[in-house]
Amino acid sequence: MRGAVLHAPGDVRVEDRDDPKIIEPTDAIIRLSATCICGSDLWSYRGIEEVDGPSPLGHEYAGVVQEVGGQVSRIRPGQFVVGSFFASDNTCELCQAGYQSSCIHREPLGAEGAQAEFLRVPLADGTLVATPDLPPDDLVPSLLAASDVLGTGWFGAVAADVGPRTTVAVVGDGAVGLLGVLAARQLGAERIIAMSRHQPRQQLAVGFGATDIVEERGDDGVARIKELTGGLGAHSVIEAVGTQESMLQAIRSTRPGGHVGYVGVAHGVELPGEELFFSHVHLHGGPAPVRRFLPELIDLIWNRRIDPGKVFDLQLPIDEAAEGYRAMDERRAIKVLLRP
Amino acid sequence: MRGAVLHAPGDVRVEDRDDPKIIEPTDAIIRLSATCICGSDLWSYRGIEEVDGPSPLGHEYAGVVQEVGGQVSRIRPGQFVVGSFFASDNTCELCQAGYQSSCIHREPLGAEGAQAEFLRVPLADGTLVATPDLPPDDLVPSLLAASDVLGTGWFGAVAADVGPRTTVAVVGDGAVGLLGVLAARQLGAERIIAMSRHQPRQQLAVGFGATDIVEERGDDGVARIKELTGGLGAHSVIEAVGTQESMLQAIRSTRPGGHVGYVGVAHGVELPGEELFFSHVHLHGGPAPVRRFLPELIDLIWNRRIDPGKVFDLQLPIDEAAEGYRAMDERRAIKVLLRP
Repeated sequence: MRGAVLHAPGDVRVEDRDDPKIIEPTDAIIRLSATCICGSDLWSYRGIEEVDGPSPLGHEYAGVVQEVGGQVSRIRPGQFVVGSFFASDNTCELCQAGYQSSCIHREPLGAEGAQAEFLRVPLADGTLVATPDLPPDDLVPSLLAASDVLGTGWFGAVAADVGPRTTVAVVGDGAVGLLGVLAARQLGAERIIAMSRHQPRQQLAVGFGATDIVEERGDDGVARIKELTGGLGAHSVIEAVGTQESMLQAIRSTRPGGHVGYVGVAHGVELPGEELFFSHVHLHGGPAPVRRFLPELIDLIWNRRIDPGKVFDLQLPIDEAAEGYRAMDERRAIKVLLRP
Repeated sequence: MRGAVLHAPGDVRVEDRDDPKIIEPTDAIIRLSATCICGSDLWSYRGIEEVDGPSPLGHEYAGVVQEVGGQVSRIRPGQFVVGSFFASDNTCELCQAGYQSSCIHREPLGAEGAQAEFLRVPLADGTLVATPDLPPDDLVPSLLAASDVLGTGWFGAVAADVGPRTTVAVVGDGAVGLLGVLAARQLGAERIIAMSRHQPRQQLAVGFGATDIVEERGDDGVARIKELTGGLGAHSVIEAVGTQESMLQAIRSTRPGGHVGYVGVAHGVELPGEELFFSHVHLHGGPAPVRRFLPELIDLIWNRRIDPGKVFDLQLPIDEAAEGYRAMDERRAIKVLLRP
C-alpha cells in the first residue's frame, strides 16, 4: 500500500509500505476513506520533536472495516468506522471514567501510520465506533474530523467546563481551536471569543459560532479579554497551542474560579506554581479521550447538526502528502485532508 | 493592646500596639477570644519570604464584636464571629461564584495582625459569620480552626473533588493536611490515605478518619499509593505543603482523570507542562475561599459533629507567642493556639 513516511525534519515521502495484517485477535484492518495531517505532526516535521529513523505518519482515520480478528465481536467487516488516535479497551476503570486516552491497555495509533491506504487498529471493539450506515461522501470529512481534531476541541471545551451562560475564550486558531469554538457553541456558551489575527480563520471561527474576535496576543490579548469580561476574565478558556506563551495567555485570561481546558500538546512549558496558585483557576487537559465523545459527535454529524469538516481547506491525494505538510507548515492551509 | 510582631526571621516579639479603630464604615472591631499560628506564618519566620521591617503577625481569628461602622447592618456588637483571612464583600460576581478569597474588593487580614487582643475586620458584613449564640469555651478552638486551617483543608478536599466512593490521598501532615483528612471523611470518602511519618500526627489523622498511613515520600510514596489503588493512583489528592516535591508527589499519586486540590502556598514551584499534560489530572487550588464554607463548618462544629480544634496541641498566652513559633518551627507542635 501507499503510505506517508517522515525520514527527517521536512522530508515526507509517500512510499510503498507493507499492507497491515491482523496481529492480535482483537485487531481490525480498515481501508481508509480519508486521513489527514495534524498540527501535532508538525512538531516532528519541524524537528522540534526528534525523528528516530523513518517513521510512518498520521493518526487520524475513518474508513471501512476490511477484516477483523477472531475476538472482535462488536465491529464487523463492511462497517464504516471512526476511531481515536489511542486504541483503548473501553472497559477498564479509566475508560469507564471517560479517560480512554489513558486506558490501561492503550496503544498509540501513530506508530501504525494512518496516512496510508490501510490501517491496523488494535482493540477494535473498544476503539471503533460505527456509523449507522455507509456515509454519503460529503460527510466523510466531518466524520474524519471526529477522529481527533473535533474530539480534541470538544474535550478542550468540556475540560474548560463550558456550559450555558458562560463566556469562553479560545487561544489558538488552528483546526483544534476552531473546533473548540464549534464545541463551545454546541455546549451552550453565551459568548465565544476567538483569538486570531488571520482573516480566513476568523471567518471560520465566526461560522462555527464565535461572537467576538481578539487579534491581540500575550499580555495585550489578556487585557482585551479582561476588557470584554468586566475586568474579570472568561469563565472558560480553551488552550489549543501548547507553548509557554499560549498557556500563560490562557491562564491569565481566565477569571478566578474559572476553568482552563488545555489540549495543545505541551512543549517546553513550565508553569509558575505561585502564579497558578493565586490565579484560582481550574486546570485540566491532556490527550483528548476522543472515544468518550465519538457516539455523540458521530450523531451530530450524521444528522447534519455540525459541519466540522469545514476545517479542511485543502484536499490532496495521499501521494501529495509532502505538499500537504508544506502547506500546513507555512500556514497556507488550516488542515489538510488526504485521500488514499 | 498586646500583639505579636515579626522584626526579622526568627525574631517574634509581643509588644504594645495601638488599639485598632474603625476606619471604614464597613469595618468591625473584634475582641479576640483566640488566635493562632499558621504554617504559612513560618515562611517569613524562616526567612523564606522577605521581612520588610516590623510586621504584625497572624490572620486567624474568632471573637466577640466590640464595635461596628455605620454601614454594617448584618453583624452586631456582642455577637461571636468567625471570619476568613481575606475580607470579602460576599456580593461581587466572584464571591457569588464561591471565590471570596479572590473578591474584587478583598483585603488581606494579615496586614492587620490577628495575633493580638483586638482586630479590625474590613467588609464586616461580607466577611464575618456569627455563631448562633456565645459559644461554650471548649468550642472556641474548633471555631477558631474554621477561620483558616479547617476551611483550607476543606477547600483542598472540595478542590480535589472528594465525594462518596472516592479514594483520597493527603500529602502533608501539618494541621491543614490533617483537617483535609477530616474534610474528606465528612465529604464521604471511602478510603483516606494520610502520608505522614510522625506518630502523633498519624494518630490524629486516624482520629480524623484516615484509613491508611503511608510513611514513604517522593517516588517511594507515589509507588505506595499506586500499590494501594490497583496501580492507578488515588481519585483525589489533597496537597497541603506547597513545595516542588510535594506538588509532584501529589500529581503523580493521582490517577488519570483524578483531581489534585492544592492548598499549600506554592513556593519555588515550577510544574513541568508535558508531564502535567500526560498525567490527565485536574488541578485546582489556591487561597481557600473559607467564607464559602463557614456557615456549614460553624454548623458542624456547633452541633459537635466535628472537632477540628484537636489540631491545637499547644496553647499559650499570647505573650508567649515567640515560644509558639519556635515550637511550630521545630515541629514540636502541630499548631499553636494563642489566648489574648
